[in-house]
Amino acid sequence: MALTVVGSIAFDSVRTPFGERERMLGGSAVHFALAASFFTEVMVVGSVGEDFGEEHIEALRSRGVDTSDVERVPGETFSWRGHYDADLNIAHTDETRLGVFADFEPKLSDGSREAEALFLGNIQPDLQRRVRAQCDGARLAALDSMNLWIETTREALRAAIAEVDCVILNDAEIRMLTEEPNLARAARELMGTGPRIVVAKRGEYGAALFTGHGFYALPGLLLEDVRDPTGAGDSFAGGFLGYLDGCGAFDPDDRTLHRAMAYGTVLASFNVEEFGTERVARLSADEVSERYAELRALTHFDVPG
Amino acid sequence: MALTVVGSIAFDSVRTPFGERERMLGGSAVHFALAASFFTEVMVVGSVGEDFGEEHIEALRSRGVDTSDVERVPGETFSWRGHYDADLNIAHTDETRLGVFADFEPKLSDGSREAEALFLGNIQPDLQRRVRAQCDGARLAALDSMNLWIETTREALRAAIAEVDCVILNDAEIRMLTEEPNLARAARELMGTGPRIVVAKRGEYGAALFTGHGFYALPGLLLEDVRDPTGAGDSFAGGFLGYLDGCGAFDPDDRTLHRAMAYGTVLASFNVEEFGTERVARLSADEVSERYAELRALTHFDVPG
Repeated sequence: MALTVVGSIAFDSVRTPFGERERMLGGSAVHFALAASFFTEVMVVGSVGEDFGEEHIEALRSRGVDTSDVERVPGETFSWRGHYDADLNIAHTDETRLGVFADFEPKLSDGSREAEALFLGNIQPDLQRRVRAQCDGARLAALDSMNLWIETTREALRAAIAEVDCVILNDAEIRMLTEEPNLARAARELMGTGPRIVVAKRGEYGAALFTGHGFYALPGLLLEDVRDPTGAGDSFAGGFLGYLDGCGAFDPDDRTLHRAMAYGTVLASFNVEEFGTERVARLSADEVSERYAELRALTHFDVPG
Repeated sequence: MALTVVGSIAFDSVRTPFGERERMLGGSAVHFALAASFFTEVMVVGSVGEDFGEEHIEALRSRGVDTSDVERVPGETFSWRGHYDADLNIAHTDETRLGVFADFEPKLSDGSREAEALFLGNIQPDLQRRVRAQCDGARLAALDSMNLWIETTREALRAAIAEVDCVILNDAEIRMLTEEPNLARAARELMGTGPRIVVAKRGEYGAALFTGHGFYALPGLLLEDVRDPTGAGDSFAGGFLGYLDGCGAFDPDDRTLHRAMAYGTVLASFNVEEFGTERVARLSADEVSERYAELRALTHFDVPG
């Protein structure tokens, strides 16, 4: 079992009501890979600049992530600066410097290409399609995207979605993309174009899953200490797909998908507790299992006797 | 076991993308009572005008609701006219005519006063306090409110909250009232002032529960057919409190509260499927049980073997 992720590797500078940090390791591929590394072998495909240090690579490697397809090129690493006010659901972007990410053209080694599972992080949809074509043996391919691509390259995104098995988007993005305000109908519309699994990320409200058999939903954990929500969605996707790949579920049944939803929720909940990758970097497998059990207790109810 | 509800009885005229209706029976007390009637004996305290017909009273009585404290006074019944655009989460008010509701002074018979459980629907907080004082034997008293009272009579609302066991508000209202953006912290702050149970209604995202033992959350059912969300919150509260009262749980343990959360979610899901009270009026106890089981299947996950 192996899972390839293609996406951004970045330096994030973030300010929230709970503090601030400069140039933390971040980006969709990083958050995804760290979360998925609890379940399976992960290979990251991405590009970084000359300012990317050995300690940053080591942060991934120490979690067992294969970084041999992280290409170092002249220039500076993609960087994002943003802040959150009291409402942590809304990210305010202060500065984006694409750096080497502007010319990113994913180069996959044979190992990355031959993975059974593939996650196309939030990059330009035509790039996603080219990577998908290279990984033609992937048995479970998923993609994420963002409002920018829905607004500027809608048709390319539609084409990319038609070529994957699983779509993982924010609920507002699913509505925007389909122009259908009812989420269940919107998900069904997307499934009609190709994917057999649609996951709607709902921020602090959790996530919903749609398959040909119906829907499923889990609330998020209601934590008192949320310090930095950056990367929560990618951590969710990493836990979700990482679990599926780790148990070889490339055509997962609903029961397996429900567990994957729970692991995604658990990894996202750890991610937001501290800044950047701080919390997930020192997370243990036991803590993941404990919170999985906690999430069960916090969402389950019995049948009246 | 008996449950008294004090709140508005109204005529609602509603337009949504799925149709429109004129002067349907509505109001917080009506939606609450119909939902609660599946679980316990309900007594409604409210006032209506001369335009309120016998058929409207009969709609409540046919569900076994005691309407002897519904007072008919000269004037017209409270009426609300509103519409929903594509985003059914946002109600747009077009006209409010308070009518006899403007001078509403709840008059409780001995029967209503002696109920073990009390729901103070969304009325002016000082009125809520006077009713609470009359029902001094109630062992489980809950209240709802709205942003209008938070903005105009915050201190009175704070005082009313201090006198009940359970607060049932929208999550945005809990944040607004406490000026604390983190919902878990905001709920804890409210509990510090008196109530031992805080329920945060989250619209289509479901509901969260806070007690001294921690939190619990359920997502809403993701229905493809949502026609009119008016009254969903009151239906939730009716299912929630009705279940608790019906099983005599006036100091409910967490397990009982979790079931009550599920019944609230179920009743709210039926309410929104059709306009006004259309769906709940013809609902059967078997359908409630079936959807309860469905909600379990749609939210539960197992432990990996």
